Amino acid sequence: MEASGRDLDSREEALERDRGDPLAPLREEFLLDGEGIVYMDGNSLGRPPSAVLGSLERVVRDGWGGRLIRAWTEGWMDVALELGDRIGALLGAAPGQLAVADSTTVCFYKAACAALDARPGRSEILTDPGNFPTDRYVLESLAAQRGLRIRWLEPSDPIRGPSATEVAAAITPETALVTFTHVDYRSAAILDMAGITAAAHAAGAMTVWDLSHSVGAVEVSLDSAGADLAVGCTYKYLCGGPGAPAFIYVRAEHQQALRQPVWGWLGRRDPFAMDPGYEPVDGIRSFLSGTPPILALHALMPGLELVERAGIERIRAKGTALTAYAIELADRWLAPHAMVVASPREPQLRGAHVALARADAKQLCERLATRGVLADYRAPDVVRAGLSPLSTSFADVHDGLAALRELTA
Amino acid sequence: MEASGRDLDSREEALERDRGDPLAPLREEFLLDGEGIVYMDGNSLGRPPSAVLGSLERVVRDGWGGRLIRAWTEGWMDVALELGDRIGALLGAAPGQLAVADSTTVCFYKAACAALDARPGRSEILTDPGNFPTDRYVLESLAAQRGLRIRWLEPSDPIRGPSATEVAAAITPETALVTFTHVDYRSAAILDMAGITAAAHAAGAMTVWDLSHSVGAVEVSLDSAGADLAVGCTYKYLCGGPGAPAFIYVRAEHQQALRQPVWGWLGRRDPFAMDPGYEPVDGIRSFLSGTPPILALHALMPGLELVERAGIERIRAKGTALTAYAIELADRWLAPHAMVVASPREPQLRGAHVALARADAKQLCERLATRGVLADYRAPDVVRAGLSPLSTSFADVHDGLAALRELTA
Repeated sequence: MEASGRDLDSREEALERDRGDPLAPLREEFLLDGEGIVYMDGNSLGRPPSAVLGSLERVVRDGWGGRLIRAWTEGWMDVALELGDRIGALLGAAPGQLAVADSTTVCFYKAACAALDARPGRSEILTDPGNFPTDRYVLESLAAQRGLRIRWLEPSDPIRGPSATEVAAAITPETALVTFTHVDYRSAAILDMAGITAAAHAAGAMTVWDLSHSVGAVEVSLDSAGADLAVGCTYKYLCGGPGAPAFIYVRAEHQQALRQPVWGWLGRRDPFAMDPGYEPVDGIRSFLSGTPPILALHALMPGLELVERAGIERIRAKGTALTAYAIELADRWLAPHAMVVASPREPQLRGAHVALARADAKQLCERLATRGVLADYRAPDVVRAGLSPLSTSFADVHDGLAALRELTA
Repeated sequence: MEASGRDLDSREEALERDRGDPLAPLREEFLLDGEGIVYMDGNSLGRPPSAVLGSLERVVRDGWGGRLIRAWTEGWMDVALELGDRIGALLGAAPGQLAVADSTTVCFYKAACAALDARPGRSEILTDPGNFPTDRYVLESLAAQRGLRIRWLEPSDPIRGPSATEVAAAITPETALVTFTHVDYRSAAILDMAGITAAAHAAGAMTVWDLSHSVGAVEVSLDSAGADLAVGCTYKYLCGGPGAPAFIYVRAEHQQALRQPVWGWLGRRDPFAMDPGYEPVDGIRSFLSGTPPILALHALMPGLELVERAGIERIRAKGTALTAYAIELADRWLAPHAMVVASPREPQLRGAHVALARADAKQLCERLATRGVLADYRAPDVVRAGLSPLSTSFADVHDGLAALRELTA
């Protein structure tokens, strides 16, 4: 028993937290299967909002079927930018700076190319070896194509990730591009976007931020942090569906000068003129390449709407409460069995997931799955509990951690 | 009245053709709206198969909702390649050479990069100025990035497009890449894939074919034609939906040597190891970059299945019959009013659409639309009648051309 009188071990205590959760009613908006799954992987693939079914049926029947080709000029040409503006509002970005298009990998490739092209004389890219794999691989491909060197910054604290001070010390006059994931996919550490960006700018480098584990989970201030470019994934906290299209942010003041490498008809001025010679259209639209994925964009709308309805402040508050509860339980139930919290303990430094480390994490994840508790293994030793604020209850956290307690004991 | 006794002017004659059409029953498989639209734009956006609704509902409810993250290892990782194999079967490609991913523009960028990287010492790209805009723009971007020159081959016959002889004459020892669209988006001319590819290979150049207006409409023999790489669109004759993912073909014997430029986690060996250092996985999978668009891939399945059910031979036969009928009517009804056929008259040289040229084509398309007849204007003077074989009836052709007759008279 705690001093407060709460019994942290009891499931009733979790249910009490759920009763006090202002976002709890939004769980009803998701398709929750009846198998009693405890889902701690909403940061890998967000659960489907029920409204996705209706949104897809409407766009198939009324748009695609009913309006046919006319739908392109009746609105479809703008969906990628309208959704971009709405996502931008969650990220502290004024309208006209985001577009939804392509995979996160392709968006990151475009953003990194644009940034590197803007610093033609420089030979280095700065990132950390714990950055998300696809970002690292894209940087390797660009380094190989352009004869650049990647400087891998090993943070002194691998749980907290690179600090602005460490980044500033690692930047050289050769640094063209500084790029990190804002919320670490493994530890959930939130990097200091404003501080790191300022350090990059002080040395004349460009920045690309990966917001895949940030958007819809934590507050982000792209504009005020001075970020140059950013990308992010919509199938995690925005619940856009498996392989949902990603987004790209290009700061308004850069849009005239920066050019993405995949010149396609949808990024051209007056695309249906089909004229000779590529001329980028004004604004963020020039970062589009091919035809926007209209069905996938409509699948993304309901999740985005739920995030907007909840509000990012309430989502952030619940994410903090869920992860704090998970950490309390882990300290109590798992630490005695050598499974330790590998995420920052300061709530302001932590996203909406918690890394729990033990050498047999891979086997633990497999055994959890057989009990209907889904979490991701992240090499070499992490069970990652993703606690997507809109669809995760405190009872889920209790049940998931209780299953781990049994398996680790 | 013709010698055969048929009255070409009569709508009854069109209905008679529909009664004799073995593919007519497949029209029931599409969501046809009730407004009496005459749709001659199925080569811009194919109509929705009714089964798309069920396919999307199943993947949302059972896959995304029911299996959640587990669905990735239960099949989703292979969908892009399974659909690739099925599309390959329509294109004369043995399994293991196609993947469905990204937009056509991004696929074309990847394919063209891979081809150019394979010919590092050469300075030229050969294409025609009538090639589809997005292909031309991508080539311009690659030429700018790499300091290459584009040689624009003006065909002697703009309706038939570049012949193998003309291509052979235009290729130089500096030609790295020869790339054309197999079925011209405007005239419907079918280029000589085998002859042009042989001419390219004789000079040591690589080829990339754009099959956007071919797949699901005409017979293609990628393997036996010796094609190196190809891409194509699935939202035209495959009816995959607006902005549906595209496909990329890489000849098996090239897959070990060719490398696409967007190194992402889904193209890496053992992606979930998240290890340092990109190593391409074996085979066509290495041409993937980001997470496959699972919902969009499921939207594509029903259209692909209809094409498979019909069989490409029967589709080709009906496409030929529809375009021949349109040409007959155009000669009879429109030619006296200065609207002329701008597609090859030889059926074996013509895809599944017909270009009808008159100076006021743009206004004609707009006026057609007000009568519920949808066709595309293609600059400078073409009304393009796209006669998607699965969903277009002979009565549609009659009604569409009859509307044009009234407007041109």
